[in-house]
Amino acid sequence: MDLTALRTANPEHWAKAAAIRALTLDAVAAANSGHSGMPMGMADVATVLFEKHLKFDASAPQWPDRDRFILSAGHGSMLIYSLLHLCGDAQVTLDQIKNFRQMGALTAGHPENFLLDAVETTTGPLGQGLANAVGFAMAEEIQRAQYGRKIVDHHTYVMAGDGCLMEGISQEAIGLAGRHNLGKLILFWDNNNITIDGSVELSDRTNQVQRFKASGWQVIEIDGHDPQAIDEAITAAKKSKKPSMIACKTHIALGHAAQDTSKGHGALTDADQMKAAKEAYGWTTGPFEVPADIKSQWEAIGSRGAADRAEWETRFAEVSEQKQNRFNRAYAMDAPKKLSAAVKALKKQISEDKPKVATRKASEMALAVINPIMPETVGGSADLTGSNLTKTGDMGVFDTDNRKGRFVYWGIREHGMAAAMNGMALHGGIRPYSGTFFCFTDYARPSMRLAALSKIPSVFVMTHDSIGVGEDGPTHQPVEHLAICRATPNTYVFRPADAVETAEAWEIALSAKETPSVLSLTRQGLPTVRTEHKLSNLTAKGAYVLADAEAKRQVILIATGSEVAIAMEAKAKLEAMGIGTRVVSMPCMELFASQDETYRRKVLPAGPVRVGIEAAVRAGGWDRWLMGERGQDKKAAFVGMDSFGASAPAGELYEKFGITADATVAKVKDLLG
Amino acid sequence: MDLTALRTANPEHWAKAAAIRALTLDAVAAANSGHSGMPMGMADVATVLFEKHLKFDASAPQWPDRDRFILSAGHGSMLIYSLLHLCGDAQVTLDQIKNFRQMGALTAGHPENFLLDAVETTTGPLGQGLANAVGFAMAEEIQRAQYGRKIVDHHTYVMAGDGCLMEGISQEAIGLAGRHNLGKLILFWDNNNITIDGSVELSDRTNQVQRFKASGWQVIEIDGHDPQAIDEAITAAKKSKKPSMIACKTHIALGHAAQDTSKGHGALTDADQMKAAKEAYGWTTGPFEVPADIKSQWEAIGSRGAADRAEWETRFAEVSEQKQNRFNRAYAMDAPKKLSAAVKALKKQISEDKPKVATRKASEMALAVINPIMPETVGGSADLTGSNLTKTGDMGVFDTDNRKGRFVYWGIREHGMAAAMNGMALHGGIRPYSGTFFCFTDYARPSMRLAALSKIPSVFVMTHDSIGVGEDGPTHQPVEHLAICRATPNTYVFRPADAVETAEAWEIALSAKETPSVLSLTRQGLPTVRTEHKLSNLTAKGAYVLADAEAKRQVILIATGSEVAIAMEAKAKLEAMGIGTRVVSMPCMELFASQDETYRRKVLPAGPVRVGIEAAVRAGGWDRWLMGERGQDKKAAFVGMDSFGASAPAGELYEKFGITADATVAKVKDLLG
Repeated sequence: MDLTALRTANPEHWAKAAAIRALTLDAVAAANSGHSGMPMGMADVATVLFEKHLKFDASAPQWPDRDRFILSAGHGSMLIYSLLHLCGDAQVTLDQIKNFRQMGALTAGHPENFLLDAVETTTGPLGQGLANAVGFAMAEEIQRAQYGRKIVDHHTYVMAGDGCLMEGISQEAIGLAGRHNLGKLILFWDNNNITIDGSVELSDRTNQVQRFKASGWQVIEIDGHDPQAIDEAITAAKKSKKPSMIACKTHIALGHAAQDTSKGHGALTDADQMKAAKEAYGWTTGPFEVPADIKSQWEAIGSRGAADRAEWETRFAEVSEQKQNRFNRAYAMDAPKKLSAAVKALKKQISEDKPKVATRKASEMALAVINPIMPETVGGSADLTGSNLTKTGDMGVFDTDNRKGRFVYWGIREHGMAAAMNGMALHGGIRPYSGTFFCFTDYARPSMRLAALSKIPSVFVMTHDSIGVGEDGPTHQPVEHLAICRATPNTYVFRPADAVETAEAWEIALSAKETPSVLSLTRQGLPTVRTEHKLSNLTAKGAYVLADAEAKRQVILIATGSEVAIAMEAKAKLEAMGIGTRVVSMPCMELFASQDETYRRKVLPAGPVRVGIEAAVRAGGWDRWLMGERGQDKKAAFVGMDSFGASAPAGELYEKFGITADATVAKVKDLLG
Repeated sequence: MDLTALRTANPEHWAKAAAIRALTLDAVAAANSGHSGMPMGMADVATVLFEKHLKFDASAPQWPDRDRFILSAGHGSMLIYSLLHLCGDAQVTLDQIKNFRQMGALTAGHPENFLLDAVETTTGPLGQGLANAVGFAMAEEIQRAQYGRKIVDHHTYVMAGDGCLMEGISQEAIGLAGRHNLGKLILFWDNNNITIDGSVELSDRTNQVQRFKASGWQVIEIDGHDPQAIDEAITAAKKSKKPSMIACKTHIALGHAAQDTSKGHGALTDADQMKAAKEAYGWTTGPFEVPADIKSQWEAIGSRGAADRAEWETRFAEVSEQKQNRFNRAYAMDAPKKLSAAVKALKKQISEDKPKVATRKASEMALAVINPIMPETVGGSADLTGSNLTKTGDMGVFDTDNRKGRFVYWGIREHGMAAAMNGMALHGGIRPYSGTFFCFTDYARPSMRLAALSKIPSVFVMTHDSIGVGEDGPTHQPVEHLAICRATPNTYVFRPADAVETAEAWEIALSAKETPSVLSLTRQGLPTVRTEHKLSNLTAKGAYVLADAEAKRQVILIATGSEVAIAMEAKAKLEAMGIGTRVVSMPCMELFASQDETYRRKVLPAGPVRVGIEAAVRAGGWDRWLMGERGQDKKAAFVGMDSFGASAPAGELYEKFGITADATVAKVKDLLG
């Protein structure tokens, strides 16, 4: 393709865009890995966006009222790294560009929010950034309603490719954005008609324009290499009350021999072809060299928002101190001081009242106390509001005519929900929690992993957590899901035994700054086992002695959630036989593992036989606690599931699968020989 | 709503449909759980479909050329149970209807293919049935091309609600069906405008008609309670070259006080309201009583296809015996006798050549031998064909003009791919395998669970299985995914160490009849460790002694996949120090667990210290093998990952995370004190 026409039509624009293309070629070649084609294809759109529209200040990447820029097509990471370097971002030095994808570099293979302040969210798994962006835009709407336009008033821009649009999560995101008229959400579709396997036609013929319109989006179709058209499209999109999709017809790997081919998707490292491409760009400097005039033009773009920011700081200084503090506290993810006292009061009351409630109900009781003192919480459910019990009276429903509403009806969209929650938290100022059935953790899984990887404290409220679900049967009965969540690094998995532990789990989850939480909650009612009020948060220890042996200690029963009551029942039977039995409640294995050896030994001393009880598979981290610190499997046993469940009343299922006090007693006697 | 008009307009139709509604009310009331509204809303559509169009013979539910009927909205299970009972299905007796959702009943909460022959697929997790149906329809196209219209020529009908259409997987399914012009796929959308949380508008305003048209579907909009309109719509759909979506405007819980409300979605058990509804239906008999004339009309429908089937049997008898055998063998999921010999020959050659190849490449080598002798295999990739290496030269590409093609370009649709694979296998005659990156197991997870639960031998080829991925970084580096797959019941997780084990794994995976397999394969090259040819399939044992101690045995190193070579290197270093070291390769923990105690003890005898080596989290089932059968953690250690990975060249990552021979030697020396 002859680029002369493009170059001569807009020489100044062209030179700035060429800088992105040249840096991309050089960095990918140096790394000998990466993706050259996407940044080369979208450089024009990005240049116009940053030069004419994006509200940002490269010297203050965390300025709360900046526009958000999300690269959903995360493999094109050199686009964002080039932009940040050119604009003068303090972290993305030339050395970082030269060390693209190398050990210890901030310029990782895919953009990682925990490495670079200016990266809004970690992308790479396709479709996630688009769904995150919906959460960002919802957070902006909610906060604008809470704090007013003077404090919160920005756009969310997201770039996505065909990969993002083919992933199912994209439909969930598109549907949500359309339903809620997220007019400040603007999506650029990198419409280059190429995927890794070849032409898009190989796998898809969807009319994306029609598809987006079907969900209530404004769609604008442009030539993605025409700066004027790009500028006009963004201007039109900013005026729209609907979310806007700008379909940018682009050429992947523009100007390179691999242009418009799937080869152009990957690493373009051939020296001669790079040389030819740079010549086509009119780029004459050496590798990683950006002419001073072009660099300074980019740096001017990087500081373009400084004045805006200064004015914002002034406006922010004018709002009430209380509002400022609330705003700053929420952005810092600091829980309010009142939280701990409120939870203590609730725990005291529960220990006195000793209600027999499901932990999903206990969760609702905790939220009823917490939500009024944490205006930053936003709750929701994937069409199971009455089952998850995540909605409290004070929240109001988020809707087009009630942006202050703090409860979201996500619809049957577990995946989009989890990704949007992550987006809300990353936007800042919001603490998202939402629910579905624990079994459908499966649907939300890719976003739950990214919450853990990206250090996002989203709270996933997963009710109906075992065969206790009953008649709905094995498709709705988790058995491996505790194992799945526990195997994931940087994730708190709470399985509280009663209303007290549930309140404690909520306090921890809502105080966490960099760790997501999963609350695994029962459908069925459970007795209160924490009948003696303790000020301290015992769940924070991960595991603790709930009831110690009366007779000489020969047995330790370790249980979680609904099985703690079974352990207590087994203890009574064993003590009646003169077998001293300690019951350890273990609501959070991760937190117990983080305790010092002394405490762990105190809770799980050597000597007694151990039986773990959990209505799930043993693979869920159990062996470490049953045998890891002492002894042989001859001295340890597990009462739980080793298959999928079945469809029948819950009580009968516990009998069928042998998760009972009698079964526990039998295992103990077998171990004691 | 006054039903008089509906009743009087089509009294005969009405009575048959009322039988479904009455049985549903009675069964749900008896179970005191379940979902009444959907069957009551879709009874008219189902009645017309079964009476006038569905090609089936209730006495032979497994007849290969039957039309497939899939209830994607699986919570409406009483619809399918009522239909089967009324049509005279031998399994669904009146007692089964009376025992709906009870222990041991075949009428589980959600339809389960492994309980009832006439249930095509297990549904409940929303959207799955719709995506399965795409696989059913693709399987029909492929087999029609292979065997001709006289042997294979049927439709796939699927019923889905708003829940199915909101789940992201639906978009992947819709896109695939549109791309491939699956004209024999007919979807009924139960357009009742109600979800559990309330009106659909609460969470979605998507124009479904426009959305389906955007992906190339024919859409027909009808009144879902007008039998004539239903009949005409199905007739038109059957003529279409495109997949058809019939938008059926229905009333959930028709005729009940809860009609058109979210309450109508659940269990309607109020006696007076049931009485009133039955009166509105003109239904005068007692609970579970179906008037003889109506039952006999339904039984006539159930035997309507007997003649078709007899003619098919005659046609089938006319085709060549070889074709008959191939057809029957494939439907029985029997591997060809030639498979074992072919794999043995490949193994022998590999042991001689000792290639250093990635196991993804080894997988391609195995498929190149297997695919030509297994015409029932259908392969594919989620837009990573050149990375997963799942395409062999002989397959051809499945397309609108090449229905004989056996390779599917699934696009960036891991979830839809996995669900469609399940559908292909359940259709019969096809053995599906397809690939993506192991990390994106996350996207396919809900369908992979259903493969295990539903006993479907789909083969998931998951390449790029560890930090060995390198520069793409933590978003693309699995660390917990082996744990996730191993925690799932009824799943074989293979992590072969070299090309020999890879071939053995393929033989097992393609011989399995009721268990899905996950092949976890490397991106990076691995040396051949099985340099001595063995006829027997050692991988079938799950674990085996790869190299025994030379000096006095003090250590057992247990490793999988890419870490087996590291174990061998560590062994060499240890033996050089006079420390006798056995290396156990453990390509499949599930198969090793299924061996008898004697064999397991032989491989892992008491005494020596043990070190497990796997570039993944220890939670992936390791403690059982390190400590479960003997000893204390003082005598066992693990070399692996306890965090997410990073972006850098693979070799440097193995050093950074300490997964090396030297690190292994150090742990051994620490254990030996």
